[in-house]
Amino acid sequence: MKRLYSNELKEHIGEEVLIQGFLFQKRIMGNINFLLIRDKFGIVQCVVKDKDQIEILKDVMDESVLEITGNCVEEKRSSIGVEIHNPKVNIISKVKYPLNIEINKPIINANIDTILDNRAISLRSPLIRSVFNIQAQMAKAFREFADKNGSKEIFIPTIVGSATEGGSELFEIKYYDKKAYLGQSGQLYKQMMVGVFERVYAISHSYRAEKFGTSRHTSEFIQYEFEMGFIKDYMDVINFGIDIIRYIKDSVEKENIEDLKIINKELPLIPKNIPIMKLKEAQDLIFEKENIDHRGEKDLSPEDEKLISKIIKDLYKSDLVVITHYPTSKRPFYTMPDPQNPEETLSFDFILRGLEILTGSQRIHEYEQLILAIEKKGLDPKNYEDYLEIFKYGMPHEGGFGMGFERLTQQFLSLSNIREATLFPRDVKRITP
Amino acid sequence: MKRLYSNELKEHIGEEVLIQGFLFQKRIMGNINFLLIRDKFGIVQCVVKDKDQIEILKDVMDESVLEITGNCVEEKRSSIGVEIHNPKVNIISKVKYPLNIEINKPIINANIDTILDNRAISLRSPLIRSVFNIQAQMAKAFREFADKNGSKEIFIPTIVGSATEGGSELFEIKYYDKKAYLGQSGQLYKQMMVGVFERVYAISHSYRAEKFGTSRHTSEFIQYEFEMGFIKDYMDVINFGIDIIRYIKDSVEKENIEDLKIINKELPLIPKNIPIMKLKEAQDLIFEKENIDHRGEKDLSPEDEKLISKIIKDLYKSDLVVITHYPTSKRPFYTMPDPQNPEETLSFDFILRGLEILTGSQRIHEYEQLILAIEKKGLDPKNYEDYLEIFKYGMPHEGGFGMGFERLTQQFLSLSNIREATLFPRDVKRITP
Repeated sequence: MKRLYSNELKEHIGEEVLIQGFLFQKRIMGNINFLLIRDKFGIVQCVVKDKDQIEILKDVMDESVLEITGNCVEEKRSSIGVEIHNPKVNIISKVKYPLNIEINKPIINANIDTILDNRAISLRSPLIRSVFNIQAQMAKAFREFADKNGSKEIFIPTIVGSATEGGSELFEIKYYDKKAYLGQSGQLYKQMMVGVFERVYAISHSYRAEKFGTSRHTSEFIQYEFEMGFIKDYMDVINFGIDIIRYIKDSVEKENIEDLKIINKELPLIPKNIPIMKLKEAQDLIFEKENIDHRGEKDLSPEDEKLISKIIKDLYKSDLVVITHYPTSKRPFYTMPDPQNPEETLSFDFILRGLEILTGSQRIHEYEQLILAIEKKGLDPKNYEDYLEIFKYGMPHEGGFGMGFERLTQQFLSLSNIREATLFPRDVKRITP
Repeated sequence: MKRLYSNELKEHIGEEVLIQGFLFQKRIMGNINFLLIRDKFGIVQCVVKDKDQIEILKDVMDESVLEITGNCVEEKRSSIGVEIHNPKVNIISKVKYPLNIEINKPIINANIDTILDNRAISLRSPLIRSVFNIQAQMAKAFREFADKNGSKEIFIPTIVGSATEGGSELFEIKYYDKKAYLGQSGQLYKQMMVGVFERVYAISHSYRAEKFGTSRHTSEFIQYEFEMGFIKDYMDVINFGIDIIRYIKDSVEKENIEDLKIINKELPLIPKNIPIMKLKEAQDLIFEKENIDHRGEKDLSPEDEKLISKIIKDLYKSDLVVITHYPTSKRPFYTMPDPQNPEETLSFDFILRGLEILTGSQRIHEYEQLILAIEKKGLDPKNYEDYLEIFKYGMPHEGGFGMGFERLTQQFLSLSNIREATLFPRDVKRITP
């Protein structure tokens, strides 16, 4: 007999069926046992009355792998519309150890460290699995949209030879008889590929040796890197960013209906018109509405990000706001200055539900201007030869962004800690499993 | 006016059009100049007769970025079916330096090191760009097939805490006050996820501190990792592997017609029936056909891989052959022994055009059997606690494989060195760009 998945059973009412899965829960109610069997799509209830079968099941513990044949019977109260009667159980793999975490309760009664220490179990919880079901869909949607819009996928190496960005936060590798580092961004590579494919994206690994364990930082994370050439200006890149986030949201809304029910979360509001404002305007608004004066600061603090999100949500019913024109002194050397006011840049951050999830800019695309910009930062162009090489040989107007994949998941699903949006997080204390 | 791409122009014959791109070549023939403009899809020829325009173009060097308006005229001899007459040139970005490599000739007259040292230029060559156009399509096809067949994408961390596989080939990281390593495979993670999603895949980074620079090894490479639960046996995994390689080939054949023409390569033959044989049978065949006696050896040597491919191609018109039943002593501890003969395993390698590109097996899925297998290898189960944890809590029959992404590209396109199939290779001598 062919194995059927839980979501196929309602097409087989009245038939004898074969299912396979993990024993999610066993409920003993006198002479009747209920077995809940979990497969990749959902949970099937089996009603066991036969004494021999109850005997077989007596010492079978949760998460054992079972194969069950039985009658598929309509059951309107079940989310899958059926249950299995008169099941015959075949044990594929018998668990002999109790689980360290109960994963079949409406909430998981364990702290984040216990959950992460016991990843082999905790990920099997429908509450946690749904998060990563949604995350897989988010990655798929990102690629779909980028592909449709003429971008090519590229693969960015993680080992880099020089420590040009933020030396103190780099991880050092023993690389044969040399030193190497784990890359902090795909900037060099994606910009180089603009000269090749014009529009490129990567789902790439980034590393920061963050010394503090905050709820929005880990040491290894995934970036959606995107870069596009032949733009008119930075607004082309902003619009692409907004469109892709909206596409990802629509895709999850459509494809993960069950998962969203299980975790009981609302996706963010991404209306047709997203507010876009300069940093200064955001600071003015915070002052005006909340009477907190951060005017003149060169960046938004984490507190400011929360405040501006709250204000924007009240005013425009949007969970997303785009802040532009960060000061030249606060942005990387390759950021294009605003021709109207070179103290400000054609840069932007996207803030979603109070957290920065994307950062990008139009880039300087002229070799000579780039050398001046490097020198203005007090840096030595000699240390940027590989990077400068790109611009020696002709580059169009271009820009791009990096979006934090786990942060986007975190904010989409209102998770309190980025570790809940990371399959196997790495931080100052954690390096396993 | 809206920018048109080279592949859109034949719909606009007789119109004035605007194109943008890189100056691929300038041919001066007396009073007529020919400009070849490269965009992401192809090359457009522009015929310049106007003296003012010729003057503008005089000191414009290759790879300058140009914007051109002109008349779109039918030209049957052109691969895109049109050329541009009476062009007006606007220089977006002017190159002032000659290129280190000529990329507009029918062959690239430089060795692999020069090509890699000058990646910003060499990747712009249509000959090289086509390889990575095809590679992007291969990644897309891999995901498409895996998605269609019910697999979820997972993201595997690259930093790992312990050196359980092949200690001497590991790269060590200074990880805060501890040591960590760059992961060699996603084995732990993908097997753990079988308990969650049943079928998973990852496009993951792997690292080997290979001391020798061979044409088929680099230090950082991409693996297509795949793992499936609830299998009948190892043949389910082999069939999935064959099907996905065939799907990738069909996809490239359909989507990369121009690229295949440019690089002038034939894709491998993947017939309906792929020969599958035991290691011993392959050794017998090599002895019988080539009179080379490697019978009794525990693996195929690189030379054997070439020989068996040649023999199979002659006999079955297939560029792919699957070798199974490698000895238990040569395979990792987690490989399922053949119940018929525990000295052999339910393992397999795929050999494509003389090179191993995929390796996999059915895995041991029972906790107790796994502990015995670890001890039999003379290893200590204590060092495998994270891994063993997965099997303590119930696992179905399962198996999987890892396929080398760059190797697959190399063999698909008959490239002599894996570095030609890697955007930014890393090896004992190379760590930039």
